[in-house]
Amino acid sequence: MLAAAQAACTAPLLWAQLLGTAHRAMATSLLRVPPPEELLRPLAVPERLLLGPGPSNVPRRIQAAGARQLLGHMHPEVLQVMDEIKAGIQYAFQTQNQLTLAISGSGHCAMEAALFNLLERGDTALVAINGIWGQRAADIARRLGANVYELLKSPGKYFTLQDIEQGLVQHKPLVLFITHGESSTGVLQPLEGLGELCHRHGCLLLVDAVASLGGAPIFMDQQEIDVLYSGSQKVLNAPPGSAPISFSERAREKLLKRKTKPPSFYLDMGWLANYWGCDGEPRRYHHTAPINSFFSLREGLAMLAELGLETSWERHQTNCTQLCQGVLDIGLELFVEEEKARLPTITTVRVPEGYNWKDITAFLMDNHGMEIAGGLGPTVGKVLRIGLMGCNSSSANVERVLRALQDALRCCQRSRL
Amino acid sequence: MLAAAQAACTAPLLWAQLLGTAHRAMATSLLRVPPPEELLRPLAVPERLLLGPGPSNVPRRIQAAGARQLLGHMHPEVLQVMDEIKAGIQYAFQTQNQLTLAISGSGHCAMEAALFNLLERGDTALVAINGIWGQRAADIARRLGANVYELLKSPGKYFTLQDIEQGLVQHKPLVLFITHGESSTGVLQPLEGLGELCHRHGCLLLVDAVASLGGAPIFMDQQEIDVLYSGSQKVLNAPPGSAPISFSERAREKLLKRKTKPPSFYLDMGWLANYWGCDGEPRRYHHTAPINSFFSLREGLAMLAELGLETSWERHQTNCTQLCQGVLDIGLELFVEEEKARLPTITTVRVPEGYNWKDITAFLMDNHGMEIAGGLGPTVGKVLRIGLMGCNSSSANVERVLRALQDALRCCQRSRL
Repeated sequence: MLAAAQAACTAPLLWAQLLGTAHRAMATSLLRVPPPEELLRPLAVPERLLLGPGPSNVPRRIQAAGARQLLGHMHPEVLQVMDEIKAGIQYAFQTQNQLTLAISGSGHCAMEAALFNLLERGDTALVAINGIWGQRAADIARRLGANVYELLKSPGKYFTLQDIEQGLVQHKPLVLFITHGESSTGVLQPLEGLGELCHRHGCLLLVDAVASLGGAPIFMDQQEIDVLYSGSQKVLNAPPGSAPISFSERAREKLLKRKTKPPSFYLDMGWLANYWGCDGEPRRYHHTAPINSFFSLREGLAMLAELGLETSWERHQTNCTQLCQGVLDIGLELFVEEEKARLPTITTVRVPEGYNWKDITAFLMDNHGMEIAGGLGPTVGKVLRIGLMGCNSSSANVERVLRALQDALRCCQRSRL
Repeated sequence: MLAAAQAACTAPLLWAQLLGTAHRAMATSLLRVPPPEELLRPLAVPERLLLGPGPSNVPRRIQAAGARQLLGHMHPEVLQVMDEIKAGIQYAFQTQNQLTLAISGSGHCAMEAALFNLLERGDTALVAINGIWGQRAADIARRLGANVYELLKSPGKYFTLQDIEQGLVQHKPLVLFITHGESSTGVLQPLEGLGELCHRHGCLLLVDAVASLGGAPIFMDQQEIDVLYSGSQKVLNAPPGSAPISFSERAREKLLKRKTKPPSFYLDMGWLANYWGCDGEPRRYHHTAPINSFFSLREGLAMLAELGLETSWERHQTNCTQLCQGVLDIGLELFVEEEKARLPTITTVRVPEGYNWKDITAFLMDNHGMEIAGGLGPTVGKVLRIGLMGCNSSSANVERVLRALQDALRCCQRSRL
């Protein structure tokens, strides 16, 4: 054993020769880390109804698209799929922006792409924080050396135009970050008039629509949003791993005026614009894109285009309304008091007195094969979060989750533990 | 039409009310960007043999894993899969490093994760450049504000210990970046003694093994490599979108001593270490991971563990040798002259006199349903690149690509155009 260990020190030197000879037994003895046993067992993935804040379930058609054979990241068929994704995002965002594409990462990566490209060291950013996403954006902007000011609002509340204008006047930011669908609190931020207000104050408007896109109306061009991004795994029902993003002409001008390169090459919008055919130049290799995630995203966007945005918005609104009424009917309370401020994709329910939220989510998982989530960031311990997104937004699922909740209320009372 | 356009300006304001009423026709007229026609046609993905520098073809088992129903990114089954991935990477890397995980992005994203976490503004990095990957690493390190020195070598050549030592003595870097498998040139960089040399000079060793992992021997611990990363879409035969990475104890200490946070939250190794269960703390939500890419990566690593590293190395070496001999036999020249410096996964062939490389690659694509690639970066126009990776590394594929090349040599001569 000691001899083998000593021999191992010269392993790399000898390997080439060993491979050419019959010394397999000796070669094998040089491997110090054996094949892990847990990896030699089959992959175990149970079926589950995902009614948390995302990912949501993936329809067969999108699963099948993701399981297609790969192509190269520069093959014409892949570039065609990318063009189709671009058109699909333009439709979903209601924009004609040329600089529209999908980031090769999840929604969080798109948030970084937005901030990395918009901000330079010393730029001033105003971040509207009424939940976890504003906190995250402020964290990232600080990492970039920006001067970050926070506009705070209690979780469960949204910002008024007056709130925003006060911040713009006081801090004169270059960029305002705000979250359309605050998935940690269940709040839908009204966007009417916000772009115009920002532009009157010489500020760019950056909107996070990861949790809301396709579930609540958004009109990037008409609402004068400068940078908008979302995720693949919410209403679009594709797996996480790609993220739609778009830059207005105003935002694109800011990118062109940068004095320094963004810290990331992977997320450098100049390179990405070229790879996505947004700059009119011949497309160059930039990075190996997640090809089959793009196939899935393409199908998610196609299904939204086939359904139509207005039908999708209406469906999410109707099922959310039904869920909220049902929640009230079984004696629970909603976290977001104002009806029009409720996010149609994710509903936050106050954790009922006398219960531990973990008991309830675990009960639904164990007894109903169903995910709903607890709070996140500022709402931890305070709420349960129920997501009805894309194909999961159905009247049948509303009834299913309400039945499961009633079951949990019967079985999980603290007094019974 | 004009009236509709004017009405559209108030669209967001009216939407909530409209949804509650029967005004669907009017609502629809407010959408300015129609569903794109190209997205309403079916997804078209041809079958193709991918013998370029990656991605390689994906076996049925890995495709099926990626098409499984999603789970939440914090579900115990997903955390279990992540643990299995970690063990699989430890085996493939031959390391016992605790800080071992997969990045939620492609190999390029892992390169950024390594540099973002290792380097701070003002740190000195020495980058060994003998192809495109060193160029990219130098670009990223400069974006981070590091003092970057370049150690240059002609494409097709590798660095000797003397080359490296000279650079270490001259520039006293904190980190040395070097590429194990230079996929743009087809060079395999010898790593023997490099880690020890770096450590004698107080320098950390960062190695890019995107194109080589599983195809050529590497022993992270024995070779004293401090940061090692790879990709999923080469020998591991999984789709692009996740990337193995590991940090030695020395590298981890550097992370702990940072004065500033890395610019990226998404790639912050402190957060990732926690999410991947590498820090002994309860796991916290960090980002929505590409769950089904992880399923695929898990299966790719499992197939490597089942096959065994030594068999995989031997297979790649044998098929590469057969390919090189065949290339010479049909009168072509290899770009890498020294036999032991040839990367077993990607073979570079000089573009034959009197031919345009694009004609050859297009001919193979059109007539043989097969991808081989032209050069990249410093080898553009000079070489053809043939990849035999994972399941694609077979004697049958060697014969197939040689037949196709002979066919191309007959049909693509410039004189015939």
